[in-house]
Amino acid sequence: MKMGKEEVLVVDCSVRDGGLINKWYFSDEVVRNVFKAVNSSGIDYMEIGYRASEKMFPPEEYGPWRFSKDDKVREIIGETTLNTKLGVMVDIGRVEPEDFLPADESPLCFVRVATYLKDIEKAVALANLISEKGYEAFINIMAISTVNDFDLAKGLKLIDEETDVKAVTVVDSFGSLYEDNVVHLVELFKSNLNKKKVGFHGHNNLQLGFANTLVALKAGALFCDATITGIGRGAGNCPLELLLSAMKNPKFNIEPIFQVIQGTFNDLAKQIEWGYILPYMITGMLNEHPRVAIALRSSPQRDNCADFYRQLTTPECVEDMAGKKSGC
Amino acid sequence: MKMGKEEVLVVDCSVRDGGLINKWYFSDEVVRNVFKAVNSSGIDYMEIGYRASEKMFPPEEYGPWRFSKDDKVREIIGETTLNTKLGVMVDIGRVEPEDFLPADESPLCFVRVATYLKDIEKAVALANLISEKGYEAFINIMAISTVNDFDLAKGLKLIDEETDVKAVTVVDSFGSLYEDNVVHLVELFKSNLNKKKVGFHGHNNLQLGFANTLVALKAGALFCDATITGIGRGAGNCPLELLLSAMKNPKFNIEPIFQVIQGTFNDLAKQIEWGYILPYMITGMLNEHPRVAIALRSSPQRDNCADFYRQLTTPECVEDMAGKKSGC
Repeated sequence: MKMGKEEVLVVDCSVRDGGLINKWYFSDEVVRNVFKAVNSSGIDYMEIGYRASEKMFPPEEYGPWRFSKDDKVREIIGETTLNTKLGVMVDIGRVEPEDFLPADESPLCFVRVATYLKDIEKAVALANLISEKGYEAFINIMAISTVNDFDLAKGLKLIDEETDVKAVTVVDSFGSLYEDNVVHLVELFKSNLNKKKVGFHGHNNLQLGFANTLVALKAGALFCDATITGIGRGAGNCPLELLLSAMKNPKFNIEPIFQVIQGTFNDLAKQIEWGYILPYMITGMLNEHPRVAIALRSSPQRDNCADFYRQLTTPECVEDMAGKKSGC
Repeated sequence: MKMGKEEVLVVDCSVRDGGLINKWYFSDEVVRNVFKAVNSSGIDYMEIGYRASEKMFPPEEYGPWRFSKDDKVREIIGETTLNTKLGVMVDIGRVEPEDFLPADESPLCFVRVATYLKDIEKAVALANLISEKGYEAFINIMAISTVNDFDLAKGLKLIDEETDVKAVTVVDSFGSLYEDNVVHLVELFKSNLNKKKVGFHGHNNLQLGFANTLVALKAGALFCDATITGIGRGAGNCPLELLLSAMKNPKFNIEPIFQVIQGTFNDLAKQIEWGYILPYMITGMLNEHPRVAIALRSSPQRDNCADFYRQLTTPECVEDMAGKKSGC
């Protein structure tokens, strides 16, 4: 799929976003299988995990892909020839300058800064630090369904003027955007970003993760995020296999993705949960963070979607998530 | 959601389409729970099953909703006041005139004729028989992704001129339509149907069942089909809860739908399978009938999506579905 003259670039986030489900405790074998499939398929970018400071996150409480250390990434790559650019995501305030070597000493070549709009100045500073170290930098603006256009336009202009990022990504963290919202946001991003491209990261709470990604590309987004079988926290993401099937770009090969699903993801899906599940649909339709649905899914009331909906929509019950109290 | 002056009408097909999974062996309790939820939610139409001739389908081999006899429907309704119109679907050549009493002697008020385009003359005759008996008649054109526009336009004109049906429905049986296909088909239907409305029935093979339904409504469809949690053969359908949430029509109440999911569908989902499952994604992307994927899901190779894709896309292996032979 080419929109105008420029080719759409695909970012696989399977391990990074999937790790939000299991605290990044994926085995090396799983990560290597994902990497090999993504690399063989010709995907442009792969986000292999988060990078975070071990001072802020005790390593004994998280799997290796919370940190994605350079040496660990090298163990995964082994002797494989890279077709895909590898990178990591960072959160504002969860990483320090010394956590990054200069890019020419690292197997990584890009870093995406995840930020809320309120922290955009911090995101700009962090993105600039990353650019100075020689990495391609990106900014992902999370929880986009909760911000107003006026503040968003200001933030985008700041990024456009004060950074060298390659793209700024619309992140539908709550999975609550419809087609018209996506078109509006991509157009708002485009009109405030003269020198940067627009990306899109969907979630599947309303079964629109894939559909909204196609809408974003049609509206002019040039980067899009996807994960294998949609793996990701809560309802998950735009499935990579659907995106490749729709894009019909001859540079992509879908078969390695089917192979890693058959060989690895069928088992993963028995161990951890993601996808269209009613409590996540309900947080999506209500434009709420999925955390209350995640809590519900860990409780004995995990399947009680009607009770959950009533709790979330009954004002006096907002503190009583996950069925911890009755009487609502 | 109102498109222009006319209101969109919703058809629940949970029992009818869901019955394709389990040969319509739903208990009376399940069907009554679905009926009560749909009726309380203010859904416009509910297709409670198929109507078929017992001469052609041995009753001992099918559940009751293959036949949906008038007395059986009355048992489900009981003393409930009807907000929702009840009806059935019929297949060409699988029902006889004597299988329908005059509408004023039946609890049903509509009948939908499911047809392939090649049988459109038969569908017209059957729809006219149904209209003459006093029912609202509809025609659903199945496997729409396999027909050419020229033949389709001829068929639509025939329906427009020679029947009294209320709507003609675009049925994406293979779940392979994208947005542009949906817009094209709805426009083709509209331009060839001067006196009838257009309907849309999506399938979820590409996670577009709901998104395509919204596209169809935007393009001018005025009837749309949905099922609770998307229950239906293979990848299933547009989920009713998503549609109600998006439509925001005050006449609909979503809570009874959440209640029947919590009370009935969570258990059903443990007994029978539907939804976004890779073999159905693959038949959707290849514009194939889901029957080969259904066969695969009953075999020991049920999760081998990569092998399945290779078989379907390797010419000499087209007869070797469901892993019955190796060597492809």
